[in-house]
Amino acid sequence: MRISELSAATGVTVPSIKYYVREGLLPAGELTSANQASYGESHVERLTLIRALLDVGGLPIATAKQVLAAIDTPGLPLTWVFGVAQHAVSDVSLYAPVEGQTEGTREVQRVIAQRGWHVSPENPGVHGAARVLDTYSRVGHPELARIWEGYALGAELIARADLETVGFSDDVTAMAETVVVGTILGDALVSSLRRMAQEHISNQQYPAPKEHP
Amino acid sequence: MRISELSAATGVTVPSIKYYVREGLLPAGELTSANQASYGESHVERLTLIRALLDVGGLPIATAKQVLAAIDTPGLPLTWVFGVAQHAVSDVSLYAPVEGQTEGTREVQRVIAQRGWHVSPENPGVHGAARVLDTYSRVGHPELARIWEGYALGAELIARADLETVGFSDDVTAMAETVVVGTILGDALVSSLRRMAQEHISNQQYPAPKEHP
Repeated sequence: MRISELSAATGVTVPSIKYYVREGLLPAGELTSANQASYGESHVERLTLIRALLDVGGLPIATAKQVLAAIDTPGLPLTWVFGVAQHAVSDVSLYAPVEGQTEGTREVQRVIAQRGWHVSPENPGVHGAARVLDTYSRVGHPELARIWEGYALGAELIARADLETVGFSDDVTAMAETVVVGTILGDALVSSLRRMAQEHISNQQYPAPKEHP
Repeated sequence: MRISELSAATGVTVPSIKYYVREGLLPAGELTSANQASYGESHVERLTLIRALLDVGGLPIATAKQVLAAIDTPGLPLTWVFGVAQHAVSDVSLYAPVEGQTEGTREVQRVIAQRGWHVSPENPGVHGAARVLDTYSRVGHPELARIWEGYALGAELIARADLETVGFSDDVTAMAETVVVGTILGDALVSSLRRMAQEHISNQQYPAPKEHP
């Protein structure tokens, strides 16, 4: 199809398509004449993924490019694709490396050891968790750190489900794409479910009176 | 203590303290003369909480004020405080109401019924989850919605842990404060743990080769 048809099929404007090709996010079409190129179904799929990463995932162009490059690298171990996706969506101050040893970093190491997790020190979650724990103490609520066990168990169930989705496909590119989309959008899904479950359990444990002024 | 001592004790500048009093976030000190007020330990605690909500939670002043008002309302059912905290930290486009019935909203209702959750239609999680599910389909990865069960179980464990922390205190203000801080910072803690567990399980299921170019 022509670029105008690709634009119609995806809802992405022609200038944006050209921009993504220039930036290396979208492979160029096949040249059919000096000033015309032909695009296929794979371009439609890639464009949809690009928009999901940019619009829903909120990634900057350069980060989206890294993520797509990881998806496209043949034979890249899936664990590595996970790493790239995790770093891409963890590029905020929450996950910035925590300097030196703190109460929080020690507590995180303790829990990792207790759960028997194999986690590299560069995992953004290690720093994010340490930062949150240190903040709990700073604002005078160190007791919030005592719920580690329930949180860690819940996170394990969620991560196990994450890995299950990866097994649904047998094509490596599709698996990598699943990892990226699931990592980026999954955080939002987990937070949403937590809000629903909180309301449900809070209603069970602390029933509200029928009426309230 | 004087305002200068309150500033020294908390690291919050005197102009900021005066601003929070003016905006109704911090109760005024007790007037000891025409132009001097005295502050107590409760002011130190409240100031620390205000900074946590603003700096770590990223709340705007007006939202922080609503949250503090909920904490301060005597006898407000805890379930309501949860609601206020949830809405405060869910004030982003992800959680905006989804218009009409979509695949996503139907799927969310199905899961709520299956888990036996009692959740009000205004719960921001209902809309956030529906939006994520609709996006999964739109980007060609509807299979990501198939992991609901693991996610919902994980979220329930996490919410149960959340409610446990509330029971640690017997003072209602402290319980409400726990709800607010835990809801706001807990999302970040859950995402962090998910990243660690993903790496661990991914390494187990898809071991990376010892070396990679």
